[in-house]
Amino acid sequence: MSRDLAEARVHAIETHRVTAEPYYEPVGDEVRLFEAAYADRIPVLLKGPTGCGKTRFMEYMTWYLGDRGRDPLPLVTIACHEDLVAGDLVGRYILSTSGTDWLDGPLTRAVRAGGICYLDEVVEARKDTTVIIHSLTDYRRVLPIEKRGLIMEAHPNFLLCMSYNPGYQSALKDLKHSTRQRFVAIEFGYPPRALEERIVAHEAGVGAEQAAGLALLAEKIRNLDKDAGAEGPSTRLLIYAGMLMRRGVGARRACEIGVVQAMTDDEVLQSGLREVV
Amino acid sequence: MSRDLAEARVHAIETHRVTAEPYYEPVGDEVRLFEAAYADRIPVLLKGPTGCGKTRFMEYMTWYLGDRGRDPLPLVTIACHEDLVAGDLVGRYILSTSGTDWLDGPLTRAVRAGGICYLDEVVEARKDTTVIIHSLTDYRRVLPIEKRGLIMEAHPNFLLCMSYNPGYQSALKDLKHSTRQRFVAIEFGYPPRALEERIVAHEAGVGAEQAAGLALLAEKIRNLDKDAGAEGPSTRLLIYAGMLMRRGVGARRACEIGVVQAMTDDEVLQSGLREVV
Amino acid sequence: MSRDLAEARVHAIETHRVTAEPYYEPVGDEVRLFEAAYADRIPVLLKGPTGCGKTRFMEYMTWYLGDRGRDPLPLVTIACHEDLVAGDLVGRYILSTSGTDWLDGPLTRAVRAGGICYLDEVVEARKDTTVIIHSLTDYRRVLPIEKRGLIMEAHPNFLLCMSYNPGYQSALKDLKHSTRQRFVAIEFGYPPRALEERIVAHEAGVGAEQAAGLALLAEKIRNLDKDAGAEGPSTRLLIYAGMLMRRGVGARRACEIGVVQAMTDDEVLQSGLREVV
Amino acid sequence: MSRDLAEARVHAIETHRVTAEPYYEPVGDEVRLFEAAYADRIPVLLKGPTGCGKTRFMEYMTWYLGDRGRDPLPLVTIACHEDLVAGDLVGRYILSTSGTDWLDGPLTRAVRAGGICYLDEVVEARKDTTVIIHSLTDYRRVLPIEKRGLIMEAHPNFLLCMSYNPGYQSALKDLKHSTRQRFVAIEFGYPPRALEERIVAHEAGVGAEQAAGLALLAEKIRNLDKDAGAEGPSTRLLIYAGMLMRRGVGARRACEIGVVQAMTDDEVLQSGLREVV
Amino acid sequence: MSRDLAEARVHAIETHRVTAEPYYEPVGDEVRLFEAAYADRIPVLLKGPTGCGKTRFMEYMTWYLGDRGRDPLPLVTIACHEDLVAGDLVGRYILSTSGTDWLDGPLTRAVRAGGICYLDEVVEARKDTTVIIHSLTDYRRVLPIEKRGLIMEAHPNFLLCMSYNPGYQSALKDLKHSTRQRFVAIEFGYPPRALEERIVAHEAGVGAEQAAGLALLAEKIRNLDKDAGAEGPSTRLLIYAGMLMRRGVGARRACEIGVVQAMTDDEVLQSGLREVV
Amino acid sequence: MSRDLAEARVHAIETHRVTAEPYYEPVGDEVRLFEAAYADRIPVLLKGPTGCGKTRFMEYMTWYLGDRGRDPLPLVTIACHEDLVAGDLVGRYILSTSGTDWLDGPLTRAVRAGGICYLDEVVEARKDTTVIIHSLTDYRRVLPIEKRGLIMEAHPNFLLCMSYNPGYQSALKDLKHSTRQRFVAIEFGYPPRALEERIVAHEAGVGAEQAAGLALLAEKIRNLDKDAGAEGPSTRLLIYAGMLMRRGVGARRACEIGVVQAMTDDEVLQSGLREVV
Repeated sequence: MSRDLAEARVHAIETHRVTAEPYYEPVGDEVRLFEAAYADRIPVLLKGPTGCGKTRFMEYMTWYLGDRGRDPLPLVTIACHEDLVAGDLVGRYILSTSGTDWLDGPLTRAVRAGGICYLDEVVEARKDTTVIIHSLTDYRRVLPIEKRGLIMEAHPNFLLCMSYNPGYQSALKDLKHSTRQRFVAIEFGYPPRALEERIVAHEAGVGAEQAAGLALLAEKIRNLDKDAGAEGPSTRLLIYAGMLMRRGVGARRACEIGVVQAMTDDEVLQSGLREVV
Repeated sequence: MSRDLAEARVHAIETHRVTAEPYYEPVGDEVRLFEAAYADRIPVLLKGPTGCGKTRFMEYMTWYLGDRGRDPLPLVTIACHEDLVAGDLVGRYILSTSGTDWLDGPLTRAVRAGGICYLDEVVEARKDTTVIIHSLTDYRRVLPIEKRGLIMEAHPNFLLCMSYNPGYQSALKDLKHSTRQRFVAIEFGYPPRALEERIVAHEAGVGAEQAAGLALLAEKIRNLDKDAGAEGPSTRLLIYAGMLMRRGVGARRACEIGVVQAMTDDEVLQSGLREVV
Repeated sequence: MSRDLAEARVHAIETHRVTAEPYYEPVGDEVRLFEAAYADRIPVLLKGPTGCGKTRFMEYMTWYLGDRGRDPLPLVTIACHEDLVAGDLVGRYILSTSGTDWLDGPLTRAVRAGGICYLDEVVEARKDTTVIIHSLTDYRRVLPIEKRGLIMEAHPNFLLCMSYNPGYQSALKDLKHSTRQRFVAIEFGYPPRALEERIVAHEAGVGAEQAAGLALLAEKIRNLDKDAGAEGPSTRLLIYAGMLMRRGVGARRACEIGVVQAMTDDEVLQSGLREVV
Repeated sequence: MSRDLAEARVHAIETHRVTAEPYYEPVGDEVRLFEAAYADRIPVLLKGPTGCGKTRFMEYMTWYLGDRGRDPLPLVTIACHEDLVAGDLVGRYILSTSGTDWLDGPLTRAVRAGGICYLDEVVEARKDTTVIIHSLTDYRRVLPIEKRGLIMEAHPNFLLCMSYNPGYQSALKDLKHSTRQRFVAIEFGYPPRALEERIVAHEAGVGAEQAAGLALLAEKIRNLDKDAGAEGPSTRLLIYAGMLMRRGVGARRACEIGVVQAMTDDEVLQSGLREVV
Repeated sequence: MSRDLAEARVHAIETHRVTAEPYYEPVGDEVRLFEAAYADRIPVLLKGPTGCGKTRFMEYMTWYLGDRGRDPLPLVTIACHEDLVAGDLVGRYILSTSGTDWLDGPLTRAVRAGGICYLDEVVEARKDTTVIIHSLTDYRRVLPIEKRGLIMEAHPNFLLCMSYNPGYQSALKDLKHSTRQRFVAIEFGYPPRALEERIVAHEAGVGAEQAAGLALLAEKIRNLDKDAGAEGPSTRLLIYAGMLMRRGVGARRACEIGVVQAMTDDEVLQSGLREVV
Repeated sequence: MSRDLAEARVHAIETHRVTAEPYYEPVGDEVRLFEAAYADRIPVLLKGPTGCGKTRFMEYMTWYLGDRGRDPLPLVTIACHEDLVAGDLVGRYILSTSGTDWLDGPLTRAVRAGGICYLDEVVEARKDTTVIIHSLTDYRRVLPIEKRGLIMEAHPNFLLCMSYNPGYQSALKDLKHSTRQRFVAIEFGYPPRALEERIVAHEAGVGAEQAAGLALLAEKIRNLDKDAGAEGPSTRLLIYAGMLMRRGVGARRACEIGVVQAMTDDEVLQSGLREVV
């Protein structure tokens, strides 16, 4: 086995543990619900728009469930896309001087070590990717690793979660019922104005007034967009605009760069947004 | 041969045997019918919706036919998907220090060891996958393994089964007649209310009243959905909702998370479901 | 060369010979026609519906032409599908400790050993598969093996046959004229009632009365289906229903499982079939 | 280098030479035209329907131009199809014990040895296949072998020819002008009745009367088909029908098997053909 | 490890540093905005038409931010296209004499060394390419390298930027919101006339009068094109025309070759352009 | 490294130099324009129909610019097609006994040795092929070789050229603006009658009268075709017809074979052409 492969193989799942408490502001009962689902190892689907905090929620929960960071659960996040194949998740043989060595994929690492495997934007994945998780999300809790001829039982702490943005109307890519009905679903949204103010102030390091302005702006645009069926600005974009302001860029210019131009190329939509700004 | 390959090769078919009696509640004469078909090794197709118990039935039957667990038949389950190719089923050569070694695929393992090979959601499979089983499902009972230049006779105990959800109207992917007419077909459905109550109570560990409420809810939604041509909630989702309730989540919230949000993203459908809840 | 490869390479064509007389009931002059075609090594196309006995006819003819089993011709059957590529038929290099070794594909084995190569459901095959057989089906009788840089002359006993179900209206996949006009074509159909009775009784081991009932049922459904342009039940399905009856399943239930459910998912069609039953 | 590869590499181009005079009956001035084109090494395109003798003409010309068989030109025939890639024509590296060895493809073998490379049904080929021949079909007469980093000059005797059936209306696959305008084109058709009689008698070994009947039949069907825009029976099918007759099959039955059933599945067309028969 | 691989592996990121000050004429506040964004490592999207200076701006900024060339940031530019896969960005194992060695892709090199990775024309990229950058463009700043089983933390100096031409109306390829909302966006356009004159004079080495003529021509054509919804000539084309003039080609001919013919094949559009010329 | 690979690697770029003066008759100022563009290394696009002499012009210019053959520039011609991938141009690792060795692709060879790389019919190429040349066709003049982790600076004599036939209306494959605006464009057409006469006489070796007849014929057909929007016969086809005449084929027959049949299969168009003949 070459040095590179050997390193890859023994690579500790430890790098996947979140040891410092992530900054997370709960919006509703999502922490309690997830805790209840995890107690029975019920797979969880997070539904919600771009940049509303789903990924950070997962980091928080692995920290929280792991005795509040004293023994955090490993978190294996997989960003799904249409070229992701089952072999990327499960693992593959890699040629070495001793013939071929098996290299666990990220899903297998989570199944083996007992962490949470989080499939981000799962509707983008190919069918074979969603089918491979079926036996991990019912009473069987096993992962068939066909290329090794074995069936691996999941570690007692393992749980499979996934996220999904219902705002994308790509019907063709909708999850199959046989996949979807294996998960309970928690809905996420952008935080209410007061909470978003607090988040922007904390993350961008701006004063309360600037944060309040940005949160108000977001609320207005989202109301606008809801009518037009479009997606509003994410909390992340507000934080970027705040950061630019802290670095001395004027408020109007920061919102132009961080919100208007970042959201759309359409000149009509842009001038609509500018008016709100 | 490297250690990884050697392990994969000798991996005992034993890990595929169900030795503890699976919890299975028969709905009709399906056990007797399957027993009769297996006596003459007639291939069986299970037709039915998502999460109605087809997979567990297969586990039960391999336990039952194997002298009620004293000598259970191996069960090799293959979740079909559109990227599954024949080589994944039959096997492949893998490079090793001694050149190339052959590694049986899951179908070949079942053919060799004399178990039941269960192709789950077979309509999702590619054509080459369905064609490879033709000679195993007629009087020949052989598997041509082209890459090894041989024809393998099936073990006397081998049987090929598959499942199929007729509710998906993906006509394009319909089974070819030449494949379909190789199987007798047993139809499955969701269990009647009283039976479903018993199953939910047993699996979720909730009281009779809660289980009755969930079974009633499912019946109502399924009647609703039948009119709309959609699929109802699976028994599995009811069990999940029951589990959340046992963990202290309120009944309404548990049904929201475990049934309403898990079934659909459509706000109109969701509020319809909420009324029923 | 590794042991697996060596085994694959020397694997005797003998496993492809049918030494026991197959049970075959001639319907017309098909045995005499095939014998005449084989005498001049004229390629033969078998046309007919699913499960009417084409495959068994091929086994019978290799037994019959091989001095009635004293020296049976090898029979190499290849189930065609849209993912079958020319390399699967002709052969490929496989890496070994001595570099690369050539492994004959099934077509090449038949060409070399002088058997009948039977391409089942040839319309499903990819174009490159049908083109590769051109030089084997005209006066040249050679197989170019490009990867080995040679042209292999066919053994004097070699013949290429193929089958085809004209009932599938997949025009797109129609055979090219340049392929089709290389074969004489023998048409097959389901056996007439009296003959089908005899076959069902023999194969399912049921009494004459039950066999007669099943053959009558098949005739009725096929007449029904001919009007509707659909395909009727194959003789194989009748045999399955007979076997279930012999195992104690009631006649009506056996026909439901073995014929009605096996043929269609359409509830209207199903109740039509049930009336006939 | 393994034994298999070494054999493939040194394989003599000699197996590609036609040493016995092929049976060929000239229809017009095609032999003289081809001879003139070959004198200046002008690439030639043969246009004509299936089974009219284009392939045999090529064999005849390599025999004829090679001092009437005393020093026949090698003939490398490549049956084109949509999965044929440039690497199949030019060659590839194959892994061996000494690293990698280069294996000439069929086109390269012809370019090197100075034979005729004949691309049969070239419209079926992929674009990269037709583009690779451009520099071989203009004044440059070179083949770039990118994978070896070299430009190979063609042997003085090399010529590239191709065939094409203008009767297929697959416009999408039409040859690009930039490919087509590199060839002079000789048109082929079925032989006139008297000549076809002679060919059928010679090839099928039947008497003059039977041959005359078959040639007459072909003429009638072709006239019929010309009106319907379809393709008529090839001379090859007539020969097959003649052979069956010589083996004792009745004339009507032989034409049914060898012409009617071989040409079409359409029952209306079939009864039309039967009337002519 | 072979010499070629070893060279590839240790190849210094130094070749990616721009040490001489690039010629760049700022148009607005783009330098200040980029500096502010880089201070907080906010990912930046450059929006603008072909040939307006986006690539040179990136070179300028890595020089400028790197202490004005005293310690320039590495710049890794990746020209995106639809066949670019994630493995091309992240890296791959390459077989060597010691088994397999890992070779960093360009993205990984930038993440490791702390430079700017610039994805040019990112809308052309495949989905898996855009998804792989998600965890690098939020608070996580990590790159999961699945094939090595590890998560790599980005160097503190790393920043991901990308460019995009909003003038292409290829809606299908629009960036997903979940990708887009990770970047602040700076808009670029062609320089105003006076500035473009200076640029053309400097780059093409022509006199002020000729440069002025070319800049005026460009302005006119762009006004024309704006009405027609087309793209105008890039500054690059003006420089080419200027260079041809400096080499003695007449002004009209230089504009014909360098602008008219280079922009379109449409004869109507061409004569329109010629009039302007 | 195996012998084959070693040969491929050291293969001298010398085989790509045109040392004898190619026969080329200039039509306009194309030689002077190209010389001016090359002086500043401005990439050049040749626009024009099939067989009008673009390839020969490139050979002539590398001879001409190379001190009129005393030190000819290497010319690396790449015939583009839709299956050409970037790796084919840039190079690839090839397995050898010493692990893997890098083999330059044709583009890299030209970049390294300082020749002209000529992409013939570039619109046929895949996007990744056209994108790879971007950094070679602006002020950067570098080729990123991702697989080796390096950026190669082009040799001072390197220039990238390409050709394109605007007559093909394959809009989908149109060059992207961001590619097109990197080239000045020289338009080519068929030579005027008097010049074409001289070319045909020279190349086909026929007398002035015959050459005049052929040139007149071409002019007439091209006028005809211009109205019909089709492409006329190339000069190459006229030369072929002339050659056949010199070999004794009658003028009418030579034009039938070399022009009419070579240009079209349409019988109506053919008889139109025959009238002109």
